[in-house]
Amino acid sequence: MNIIEIINQKREKRELSKEQIEYAIKEYTNGVIKDYQMSALLMAICINGMTDPEVLTLTDAMYRSGETLDLSSIHGIKVDKHSTGGVGDKTTLVLAPLVASLGINVAKMSGRGLGHTGGTIDKLESIPGFQTTMSLENFTKQVNKIHFALVGQMGNLVPADKKIYALRDVTGTVESIPLIASSIMSKKLASSAECMVIDIKIGEGALIKTIEDARTLAHFMIKIGNQYNRKVVCVLTSMHEPLGTHIGNALEVKESIEFLKGNYQKDLYELVLTLGSIMVHLASSISEKEARKKLEENIHNQKGYQKLVEFVTSQGGNLEQLEIAPKVFSVKSTQTGYIQKIHTQKLGEIVRMIGAGRYQKEDTIDYGVGIILTKKVGDFVLENEELLKIYVNQKDMEIGHILECFEIGTHFVEKAPLIYEIIR
Amino acid sequence: MNIIEIINQKREKRELSKEQIEYAIKEYTNGVIKDYQMSALLMAICINGMTDPEVLTLTDAMYRSGETLDLSSIHGIKVDKHSTGGVGDKTTLVLAPLVASLGINVAKMSGRGLGHTGGTIDKLESIPGFQTTMSLENFTKQVNKIHFALVGQMGNLVPADKKIYALRDVTGTVESIPLIASSIMSKKLASSAECMVIDIKIGEGALIKTIEDARTLAHFMIKIGNQYNRKVVCVLTSMHEPLGTHIGNALEVKESIEFLKGNYQKDLYELVLTLGSIMVHLASSISEKEARKKLEENIHNQKGYQKLVEFVTSQGGNLEQLEIAPKVFSVKSTQTGYIQKIHTQKLGEIVRMIGAGRYQKEDTIDYGVGIILTKKVGDFVLENEELLKIYVNQKDMEIGHILECFEIGTHFVEKAPLIYEIIR
Repeated sequence: MNIIEIINQKREKRELSKEQIEYAIKEYTNGVIKDYQMSALLMAICINGMTDPEVLTLTDAMYRSGETLDLSSIHGIKVDKHSTGGVGDKTTLVLAPLVASLGINVAKMSGRGLGHTGGTIDKLESIPGFQTTMSLENFTKQVNKIHFALVGQMGNLVPADKKIYALRDVTGTVESIPLIASSIMSKKLASSAECMVIDIKIGEGALIKTIEDARTLAHFMIKIGNQYNRKVVCVLTSMHEPLGTHIGNALEVKESIEFLKGNYQKDLYELVLTLGSIMVHLASSISEKEARKKLEENIHNQKGYQKLVEFVTSQGGNLEQLEIAPKVFSVKSTQTGYIQKIHTQKLGEIVRMIGAGRYQKEDTIDYGVGIILTKKVGDFVLENEELLKIYVNQKDMEIGHILECFEIGTHFVEKAPLIYEIIR
Repeated sequence: MNIIEIINQKREKRELSKEQIEYAIKEYTNGVIKDYQMSALLMAICINGMTDPEVLTLTDAMYRSGETLDLSSIHGIKVDKHSTGGVGDKTTLVLAPLVASLGINVAKMSGRGLGHTGGTIDKLESIPGFQTTMSLENFTKQVNKIHFALVGQMGNLVPADKKIYALRDVTGTVESIPLIASSIMSKKLASSAECMVIDIKIGEGALIKTIEDARTLAHFMIKIGNQYNRKVVCVLTSMHEPLGTHIGNALEVKESIEFLKGNYQKDLYELVLTLGSIMVHLASSISEKEARKKLEENIHNQKGYQKLVEFVTSQGGNLEQLEIAPKVFSVKSTQTGYIQKIHTQKLGEIVRMIGAGRYQKEDTIDYGVGIILTKKVGDFVLENEELLKIYVNQKDMEIGHILECFEIGTHFVEKAPLIYEIIR
């Protein structure tokens, strides 16, 4: 077996064999295949794609590159949820306790922020005292007790993905559907949930830009799930504007608390109930319609909120001590009209720049900084009326670029639907 | 400027700007851009190609990455010849002294063997005493005196190409027309000949597999030449069987000597006269037809042979001491019929394997080993009649694979033409 032959074959758009893919993943993880060879292969995959059998083999080889979590001591079925990432996406913080409040097990591992999109682990770490690492024993105990635990990393799961992901990030090979599918699914397989809902975010602020790409990704992920007897449902949703109103770590925790207390934004509410009812249905005998009703009940009776408090307390955190940055600036519109569009990625980049995200792995995050949107797409705004509030720790800041994130025009615009389609 | 943005742009098949290409070449040569990033960019170029302006900028950036040879003290025009490489391609050894014997300056730098194809420098080093390095002063002196000098490397020419070429070799990114064009032409520009003939070899045993690719390569190289006021003529020739009969370093020198003494193979003769008459015409006022006549004269009156001896002697070599490996095996046909096809690359690989080529840069070459073909495509062979002789240093060797290089059938096959077309 020879890596140059393998690269040449993919460059010429010829299908790779099972043995070739397994060799490439194994020997790259071992260090025999060099970074510069793997990046050439990844680029050839980005441009020339992969067939279904290739994606299945790649995922399997990555999945088998390390340990697998043994969650067999958890009683009953476990359900997982994953988002491909967006701006202001705090869905997990609301959804997971809400689903757990119905007695459904959510045993979850999450990641840190990537590029201009935030990560659930960073958001939870904005809560003073909150622990994102835990032994496997305590993790399973907590799930058995309160039906919900969430950690950053446990065990040496999928080392091949860690190495490949870091390389993709610096070689322009992130945006490939087969690579995204195998990266997500190899981790999901190794962390052992029987069923999962994947929120595929589409739009300017997301990794996936078109519905066609999202459908291809859903197709791969469902196919991989079937291969291992895991139930996978993909929900294609819009990321053409931030989700909810709050962007930034502690601010998103705050919005999640408010949501579970009954003060929610319409878009986030719709998404949480759609994803939640599928999760409950997959993990139990309850129909989706019935599940939706029960979830709505547990928002209004605050059982979801109580579960959030129980979960945060169990992992050492204290919601009362959540800190938002002290300096607040109000950003006002310079025109009158309807908001036609929000440049979501650009807005995400600004929030990252003021300290809510990282540029290097070792950067520390400013948990309290961020933005609260006063207006969203379709809203009417007067000249000099507030568009958003920005929370920072510095005294002064340049906020000129923020206005460029908003397109304001005279015509009323209908909001695009938040949920495009559900693929099972 | 950001290398990841540049890579993403080429991945999405969008044209790179002059500034982006110059940045990539400069910062890769400096070590700021990493091997794994350059290999991703190279793969994107391999698959998505480059526009004319991109290839011109790339070549210019590579050309300017290092020194340029100052050959201004050579009296008169200098002509160069380059081959994209093939099996048994000793054309330079015959052609350069023959052209120089007409008083035309050939001031040439050549390379070492690459993959299964040999290099002129390795072939010349098979001559005991021959020196392939020389000071610029001695080099220009020799050209002024005898019209011909040939060295391996002089000065720090095109360091970007050295680094990129080494990377391409191990990342499956060798076979890209824009990259081949810019690699060859940046070196030709830096080594200062006013006119040049490029022999683009096409076929199974060559880097370029189709006439279409060869035409694209010719188009790029002529366009680059024009940009710098260099006359470039491309000759598209067949590499569907080895050139001449001898393969291996000292053996190819031997065949070249025999050629210039008047004992030549028809295919090599035709190629030498075609390339030679263009070279003479480009560098003088002589028409191609007249040049051909003069070259033929200098074969028959042995002035070309005398020039070869003068050149070898001037660089310290002694043709009398040329050594061929002592053990000779005769490989015989197991069937009766016409030779339909010779698997040229495979044959080249076998010659490399018995010691005539390298696998690692630091490997030493066994100069005396190689093959002499007794039969070529279209020849009739009887069962048990000799197909070739193989020269080795070991006592025994496995020669089973050699027979697989020959396809023998009952129908007579017409030889394909050696010269496909000339592009100016």
